[in-house]
Amino acid sequence: MDIFFLGTGAGMPAKLRNVTSIAFKLLEERGAVWLFDAGEATQHQILHTSIKPRRIEKIFITHLHGDHIYGLPGLLSSRSFQGGESEITVYGPKGIKEYLHVSLSVSQTYLKYPLKVTEIDEGVIFEDDQFTVEARLLDHGIPSFGYRIVEKDRPGTLLADKLMEAGVQPGPIFRKIKNGEVVTLEDGRVIEPSKFVGPEQKGRVVAILGDTRYCERSILLAKNADLLIHEATFSKGEEKLAYDYFHSTTHQAADIAKQADCKQLYLTHISSRYDRNAWRELVDEAKEIFPNTDIAEDFKEINIPLK
Amino acid sequence: MDIFFLGTGAGMPAKLRNVTSIAFKLLEERGAVWLFDAGEATQHQILHTSIKPRRIEKIFITHLHGDHIYGLPGLLSSRSFQGGESEITVYGPKGIKEYLHVSLSVSQTYLKYPLKVTEIDEGVIFEDDQFTVEARLLDHGIPSFGYRIVEKDRPGTLLADKLMEAGVQPGPIFRKIKNGEVVTLEDGRVIEPSKFVGPEQKGRVVAILGDTRYCERSILLAKNADLLIHEATFSKGEEKLAYDYFHSTTHQAADIAKQADCKQLYLTHISSRYDRNAWRELVDEAKEIFPNTDIAEDFKEINIPLK
Ligand SMILES: [Zn+2]
Ligand SMILES: [Zn+2]
Repeated sequence: MDIFFLGTGAGMPAKLRNVTSIAFKLLEERGAVWLFDAGEATQHQILHTSIKPRRIEKIFITHLHGDHIYGLPGLLSSRSFQGGESEITVYGPKGIKEYLHVSLSVSQTYLKYPLKVTEIDEGVIFEDDQFTVEARLLDHGIPSFGYRIVEKDRPGTLLADKLMEAGVQPGPIFRKIKNGEVVTLEDGRVIEPSKFVGPEQKGRVVAILGDTRYCERSILLAKNADLLIHEATFSKGEEKLAYDYFHSTTHQAADIAKQADCKQLYLTHISSRYDRNAWRELVDEAKEIFPNTDIAEDFKEINIPLK
Repeated sequence: MDIFFLGTGAGMPAKLRNVTSIAFKLLEERGAVWLFDAGEATQHQILHTSIKPRRIEKIFITHLHGDHIYGLPGLLSSRSFQGGESEITVYGPKGIKEYLHVSLSVSQTYLKYPLKVTEIDEGVIFEDDQFTVEARLLDHGIPSFGYRIVEKDRPGTLLADKLMEAGVQPGPIFRKIKNGEVVTLEDGRVIEPSKFVGPEQKGRVVAILGDTRYCERSILLAKNADLLIHEATFSKGEEKLAYDYFHSTTHQAADIAKQADCKQLYLTHISSRYDRNAWRELVDEAKEIFPNTDIAEDFKEINIPLK
């Protein structure tokens, strides 16, 4: 489970930061990549990474501002050109369907794979045996979603070696033990499953929020998250500016991370008014409130370790 | 008058060639830049040039395939962000209006300048006292236009120094002479205008064609052009492939240039199957038929000299 920042800038592409896209790499977990937003030239950024477009399984759009969606039609088309065949689901606010429909049909683009587009409301928008994804509306003038991705706890792995040492031979009995059944062997011995199953693996929680002012729903989404990715378009002291443009400052992002008891905070969606030298300062500002903070950069990858 | 190639690849962005866009720089002529097509990340390419988006006056779209239009909404938005205030006119096939309308409205993009979108038919689509632009349909499966840009001939400049040497003082009389009137001075001398006006400046002709198979209309558009920019998606010998995919080979592009008596041919829209080492070969193939051929590369600029 890794986060790969494809674009970390605000509003317009700049030389140092492209517009927003974040790849959530679930290669070990499900052989898949999930994208969060796809600003223009997201596919160009991907060209310079090891990410394979055919692995993209889901794309979550936070909101419909151009710097978050204008790369979507090109990415979807190129994935088809490159032989991608598996279904993709795009989740996003109302309007995403029309945008994709018109962009693809006007350009007479026929995808070779099934494309599902789901216009979402607040709540759980996806769930399977591995993950739950919950969406809530933030405060950005237009509907902007934050996403909370919860990995489900996994039962411990069966300690097969230990069982065989105890003289238990592989067979259907292994599954029973793994499932927590107490088993009596032919020789009368009783196998206590807890002794032969490793510890339960706690799932990880990642919160990836769209553009927003400081708001309560962000805290709910980020509650106890292992990683919170929050916009910080502006530096501390620019709260008035942030409010007027429906964005957040470094301090506000850090405040959310603190109140939500997150493990780690990454700042993204950085205005191009801040050059490379100013980035460290932005981090330091946030650290005043939430020490485990870092700043996103295009092509930076971070691992979210098992607990 | 210069051509600046912003994107010269076919179908999908690749590391060495972005998707199509060509800047026609008319800085001396009218302080403006005209774009031909705007594939995804055209605005990113522009970031690395001296081209100022606010100078873009007209955008001519050859056809609606994604690799020729997906950069348009982002380019138009960013131009507004950057303070562009002058009107832009976009010319293109039917469908371009809906595409732009939906892309801009879904993303709630409000441009600070007037945007005119003109869905064109064949014929003269623009004319003023400097230029005429004529469009004709090519052969690409979907409507794909070729554009012939004709600079009008300019009357010669008045040789003011020579007039003053002859004892004629500046005044309204100068304009009469420039306009070709025979003037009689107070002292009875007759001024023959042809002797005091420099030679007429012949206008230049550039033909920029959209994706196409080899076709007759290309020859009409390119007739006697100073520069023809023609796609050559494939190498010679791939005529069957080119036909099936509605594209051209190097030989076919050169054949058009030859039949149209062009001065110079540039090949563009090069498939990514040809790596850097193969580019010279593509040029050599075309040169077998039309010697003054070269190949476009991203960020290459060529001047079209006065005649
Ligand atoms: Zn944004
Ligand atoms: Zn094309």
